[in-house]
Amino acid sequence: MLEALKQQVLEANLDLPRYNLVTFTWGNVSAIDRASGLLVIKPSGVKYANMQRDDMVVVELESGNVVEGKMRPSSDTATHRALYLAWPEIGGIVHTHSRHATIWAQAGRDIPAWGTTHADDFYGTIPCTRAMEREEIEQEYEWNTGQVIIETFAKREIAPTAIPAALVNSHGPFAWGKDADAAVHSAVVLEEVAYMALHTEQLRQELPSISQTLLDLHYLRKHGKNAWYGQK
Amino acid sequence: MLEALKQQVLEANLDLPRYNLVTFTWGNVSAIDRASGLLVIKPSGVKYANMQRDDMVVVELESGNVVEGKMRPSSDTATHRALYLAWPEIGGIVHTHSRHATIWAQAGRDIPAWGTTHADDFYGTIPCTRAMEREEIEQEYEWNTGQVIIETFAKREIAPTAIPAALVNSHGPFAWGKDADAAVHSAVVLEEVAYMALHTEQLRQELPSISQTLLDLHYLRKHGKNAWYGQK
Amino acid sequence: MLEALKQQVLEANLDLPRYNLVTFTWGNVSAIDRASGLLVIKPSGVKYANMQRDDMVVVELESGNVVEGKMRPSSDTATHRALYLAWPEIGGIVHTHSRHATIWAQAGRDIPAWGTTHADDFYGTIPCTRAMEREEIEQEYEWNTGQVIIETFAKREIAPTAIPAALVNSHGPFAWGKDADAAVHSAVVLEEVAYMALHTEQLRQELPSISQTLLDLHYLRKHGKNAWYGQK
Amino acid sequence: MLEALKQQVLEANLDLPRYNLVTFTWGNVSAIDRASGLLVIKPSGVKYANMQRDDMVVVELESGNVVEGKMRPSSDTATHRALYLAWPEIGGIVHTHSRHATIWAQAGRDIPAWGTTHADDFYGTIPCTRAMEREEIEQEYEWNTGQVIIETFAKREIAPTAIPAALVNSHGPFAWGKDADAAVHSAVVLEEVAYMALHTEQLRQELPSISQTLLDLHYLRKHGKNAWYGQK
Repeated sequence: MLEALKQQVLEANLDLPRYNLVTFTWGNVSAIDRASGLLVIKPSGVKYANMQRDDMVVVELESGNVVEGKMRPSSDTATHRALYLAWPEIGGIVHTHSRHATIWAQAGRDIPAWGTTHADDFYGTIPCTRAMEREEIEQEYEWNTGQVIIETFAKREIAPTAIPAALVNSHGPFAWGKDADAAVHSAVVLEEVAYMALHTEQLRQELPSISQTLLDLHYLRKHGKNAWYGQK
Repeated sequence: MLEALKQQVLEANLDLPRYNLVTFTWGNVSAIDRASGLLVIKPSGVKYANMQRDDMVVVELESGNVVEGKMRPSSDTATHRALYLAWPEIGGIVHTHSRHATIWAQAGRDIPAWGTTHADDFYGTIPCTRAMEREEIEQEYEWNTGQVIIETFAKREIAPTAIPAALVNSHGPFAWGKDADAAVHSAVVLEEVAYMALHTEQLRQELPSISQTLLDLHYLRKHGKNAWYGQK
Repeated sequence: MLEALKQQVLEANLDLPRYNLVTFTWGNVSAIDRASGLLVIKPSGVKYANMQRDDMVVVELESGNVVEGKMRPSSDTATHRALYLAWPEIGGIVHTHSRHATIWAQAGRDIPAWGTTHADDFYGTIPCTRAMEREEIEQEYEWNTGQVIIETFAKREIAPTAIPAALVNSHGPFAWGKDADAAVHSAVVLEEVAYMALHTEQLRQELPSISQTLLDLHYLRKHGKNAWYGQK
Repeated sequence: MLEALKQQVLEANLDLPRYNLVTFTWGNVSAIDRASGLLVIKPSGVKYANMQRDDMVVVELESGNVVEGKMRPSSDTATHRALYLAWPEIGGIVHTHSRHATIWAQAGRDIPAWGTTHADDFYGTIPCTRAMEREEIEQEYEWNTGQVIIETFAKREIAPTAIPAALVNSHGPFAWGKDADAAVHSAVVLEEVAYMALHTEQLRQELPSISQTLLDLHYLRKHGKNAWYGQK
C-alpha cells in the first residue's frame, strides 16, 4: 500500500541526517495521500542508519489509527495530522530540532526577513507560537502543538504556503511543503536563515525587515504565478 | 574477564570522536559490573584510532587497584569511582572536554532548561559545581572532582538519574547513564543543549526556564513510568 | 565552442560545494572570453551533483542572448554581464549566499580590514552597497544589482582588482578575479574573513583597521609588482 | 639529507588540513636539526594535496640560505629562524591562520587561562604581541615578526616551553614544541582554547583566570617533572 509514497517518505527522512538537521532520532518526515486520506510517517525512535521503506507507518488522517506497519508511528503524529487537516494545500511535513531554528524557538522569537536567502523561500517573518498553556500540554499535547501552530497562522493571517515553517515556542521547528521533499527543502532553508539571522543581529541591533519590494521580487521570482527561476 | 563489558566500553569510547566530542585523547568512558565490583575504563592518553578491546583496563571499584590490563587506567579513574560509589543507580560514565559544555563549565554557570531538547533527557537545570578548594586540588584531585559533583547533587537535592550530567567548574562535563551507551547519549545531548543555550541567551536575555508542565511532559514521556516514546 | 572555458567554469562551480559556500543550488560561477565577447555561466537551478560541462550556458556579453546551451542561464546572468561590461580587467565572477559574508550583507555593513588574512587578498575594506531602490528592484533587478556594485566601487574610488568582492545589501556576496578559479579563491577568502571579523568584533568593539603599512606589506607581497609570495 | 626530518615535517604539514587549521596554503610547519644547524620547512604557496617529502626545503639556521630543495621556502621562514635562534629549547614551529586563534590576534588580546583544557598545555595566559611598528613592517617584516614574539616573552618573563604559542597582533598564531609533531599539538590546542575562550566570555564577562592551584595541577600532571598523565 502506498509503496511510492513510503519510498519518498523514507528518502526524505534519510535527508535529515544528510543535511545535518538531526541528532540521534530527533526528527521525522511525513507525507499524505489526499485521495485515500492516509499519511505515511517515520516510526518512533528508530535509528536512521537502519531505516527501511517498510518501517514507514501508514496512518489514517481522520482517526489517527495505524492501518499498516509493524512499528509505532512517530510520537509527533498527532501534530502532523492536525496540520494536514487544517491545511489541505500541504502534502509533506518535517519536524526537527535543528540547532539554530530551535535556538529561535527557545528564545520565543520570530525570525525576521533580513535577507534574500530568507525571501527566496519565506514570504515574510517566520512566526514563533505563543507558549502552550498547562491544559494544552497535559491533554493531547502533540495534537495541541499542531493547534497552536494553526492558531498562530490564522491570527496573523499567514498562508501556510507563503511561510512554510513555524517555530513552536520552547520546542523547535515544523516545516512543510507540497510533498515530503519540499518539506525537507523548507526545513533546510529555515535552519540556514535561522543561523544567519542569529548572527546578523549580533552585527546590527534594531535592523528592520528587508523592503516589501525586495521581498516580493525574490519570493515571487521563485514562487509566484510568473516565476522565472530555474529550468521551466 | 568481563569481555562483553570491555567491548561495550571500547565502542562507547570510539563513539566520542564519532560524535565530535573529543580532540586527541581528551575523553574517557567507563562502565561497571556491580556484581563483581569491577569497572572497565579507557587507558590513559591512548589514541582512539589504535584502541583495542584488550586495552581497556579493569579496576576494582573499592580500592582503585588495577586487576587486569597492560596499561594505566585513565587519569580520571578516581572521579569515576567516586561517582559509582555514591550512586549505585548508574552503570556508565563519560568525561569529555566537548566544546560547549566546557564553555559553560569555564563560565561557572548552570545550563538552564530552555527547551524540550533539554527536557527530553534532563529533568531541569544541569548544575555546575562550585570551584574546588586549594586542598581539594592538591590532594586527591580526581577523587575530589567526583566529591564536588556528588556534593552539588546532594545539596541541591538532584537525583543523578533525573539529571545525568554535571559541569565541573573551570573544567568540563561528566555525564552518565545506566550503561556506557546511555552515558554517551547523555554526553551528546548535553553538548547539543549547551550549544543551543549559549546562543539562546544571545537572542534573549533573562529568559525563564520552560514551564514545569512542559518539562514534565517531555521528560516523562521518554523517562517516566508510563513513557510512550519509541518502540516499546 | 569554448570547451576549455566551459570545463573551467564547471570545475569552479563544483568548487562551491567543496568549499562549503553553497546550499542546494545557491551559487553560480561564470568566466568570460574577452576575444569573442562571450561568457560561460552555470545553468539556473541545476543541482551540483549532476552538472556536466555541456550544461554550461554560453551567453553574449553585450546582448545577454544565449548562443549555446540547452538550459536557461543562471538567473543572476545580468549581474555578471554588468560587472564584465564595467570592468574589463576581470575574467571570472562568483555569486554565493555563503553564510558569514551574507550575514554582513544582511546587516548592511562593510567588512573592515582587521587582519593580515584579509590584507593578503583584499587591499582594504570590503564594501557593502546601499539598499536598492524600489524602481531598481522592480525593473531589471539583476542588471541593477550589478549597477549598484559598480556605483559603490566608483563612488568610493575602489579598484575592483584591489578589492575583488562586494556585499550586496540585504542579499549576499559577489566575488571576482582574473578567471573563474581566482574568483572562487576570492569567494573563499571573503567567507573566511567575514567569519573572523564577525567574532573579532565580539572580542573588541571599536577596533580600528590594521595599519596602512601592514595592509601594504601583506597585500603587496602577494599582489604587488614585486610580489615575492609563493613559487615565482 | 635529513630525510627523516623531512618526512616528519611533511607529515606535520599534512596534519594542518586534517585538523582544520588551514584554508588553501595558509600554514607552515618547520623542524630543526640542532646538530647540523639546519631547519626543514614547507615550500611557499604549495598545495597540501600535492606535497611530497622532497618538496621540503632545507635552510641554514644562521644565514637563512637554502641548502637543499627545488622550491622557495615558506615566506615565513625568517620568523621561524628568529624563534629557533632565540630559543634553543624548541624543535618545531607551526604557523597558521586558524580561525579562532586569529580572531584573538585580530582583536589584539591575550587568551586568558579560563579552564583546564587550557591549563593542560599552556601554563597561563597566551600572550598577544604589541602591534608592530612601521619600520618593523617595512624592513625585514618576517624576521621582525619573530622578534616581536621574542620581545613579548622576554618582557613578560614567559618561558616558551611553558606557553608554547603566541598571537601576533593583527595577524595570527605561531605555536611550537620540542619537534614538529609537538608544535602541531600546540596549534590544535591553541585553536580549541581560543574557540572556548571566545564563547566563555559571552557567557560571563569579567571572568578571572582559574586558580593558580588548578593551573599547577593540570599543567604539571602532564608536563611537570613528576607528570603522571598517559602511559609512562
